[in-house]
Amino acid sequence: MVLLEFAMAPHGQGESLGAHVARILDVIDKSGITYQLTPMGTILEGEWDAVMAVVTACFKTLQPDCARIGMNLKVDYRAGPQSRMRSKIDKVEAQLGRRLAT
Amino acid sequence: MVLLEFAMAPHGQGESLGAHVARILDVIDKSGITYQLTPMGTILEGEWDAVMAVVTACFKTLQPDCARIGMNLKVDYRAGPQSRMRSKIDKVEAQLGRRLAT
Amino acid sequence: MVLLEFAMAPHGQGESLGAHVARILDVIDKSGITYQLTPMGTILEGEWDAVMAVVTACFKTLQPDCARIGMNLKVDYRAGPQSRMRSKIDKVEAQLGRRLAT
Amino acid sequence: MVLLEFAMAPHGQGESLGAHVARILDVIDKSGITYQLTPMGTILEGEWDAVMAVVTACFKTLQPDCARIGMNLKVDYRAGPQSRMRSKIDKVEAQLGRRLAT
Repeated sequence: MVLLEFAMAPHGQGESLGAHVARILDVIDKSGITYQLTPMGTILEGEWDAVMAVVTACFKTLQPDCARIGMNLKVDYRAGPQSRMRSKIDKVEAQLGRRLAT
Repeated sequence: MVLLEFAMAPHGQGESLGAHVARILDVIDKSGITYQLTPMGTILEGEWDAVMAVVTACFKTLQPDCARIGMNLKVDYRAGPQSRMRSKIDKVEAQLGRRLAT
Repeated sequence: MVLLEFAMAPHGQGESLGAHVARILDVIDKSGITYQLTPMGTILEGEWDAVMAVVTACFKTLQPDCARIGMNLKVDYRAGPQSRMRSKIDKVEAQLGRRLAT
Repeated sequence: MVLLEFAMAPHGQGESLGAHVARILDVIDKSGITYQLTPMGTILEGEWDAVMAVVTACFKTLQPDCARIGMNLKVDYRAGPQSRMRSKIDKVEAQLGRRLAT
């Protein structure tokens, strides 16, 4: 399973990028993929082809009216079917023996 | 105020990086900085010098016993004193008119 | 055209990642895509679907024998057919009026 | 020694970011640090405190007249005094037994 975090935004459209972010989140939310929105990006979970298809759909949503688009993305792949969306945090908390801000 | 997300881990210490991540989170949690742990990294909020000092403290915690360390980091700076740790998500939800997975 | 930089490596295979990096570069070099290797990653240039297909081919080359893989990737898209592999650097040098280390 | 790659740019200043990139490169070039400009960012090499001081100087150059600034950065640290600015590429080429595009 792949955990993938990405953030995508046009350049040259002013400081506030909220409307474009909302368009992207609409695509993600309607895709049916497991996801979590954070203050710095969106985390998707699924098989490689499934998460990449969502990222591509987001790009193609912005492309027709954005002359310049920046994106950063990172992937953490681990073989096996288990979700790590919550378990990665649980493990860190278990090792420290206390709850953290999440 | 700066929102800074980062993930730091040694290479060459096996697949499971949990113990090292726990050491880093201990430094962050005790620093007193505003932070949020996500499945893909940790988000800090504060002025540039304050958040960078925490990142440096994390690096120097790992350095003595890790021969190779990788880190990725991104910053979203906006002039002004307002926290955006929650407000960035609120804005996207307001624009879409519905709640998202957070 | 998309400029895409990425770095992909397995975790848990020791400190030296050279053999895996070589396998990935072999895929890239044989793909026919325009690319440039840097000390921190590989930069591809082409249309979205073409560059993403190469990234996917690299992942699928590592996946069969790597239980954990990390990747980071960034994209700079600009509408239009012009290559910016060299022109982005030329522009900065022109603005400064001197040559830089490249 | 740390290899650090970063890219920093204001948001809301139009599509063409060349003037701001030139200001940042001027700071880097005059700092005396070992660096290499690529089409996707700038790679610095040195000890942690030295490379981070240059990144901070770049941020503080933009901050007075940029209301919003984005940055992404990655670090590859390896214990020891050897430069890897060129040797990382040499190793990949040696493993493949042929020259690559650099």
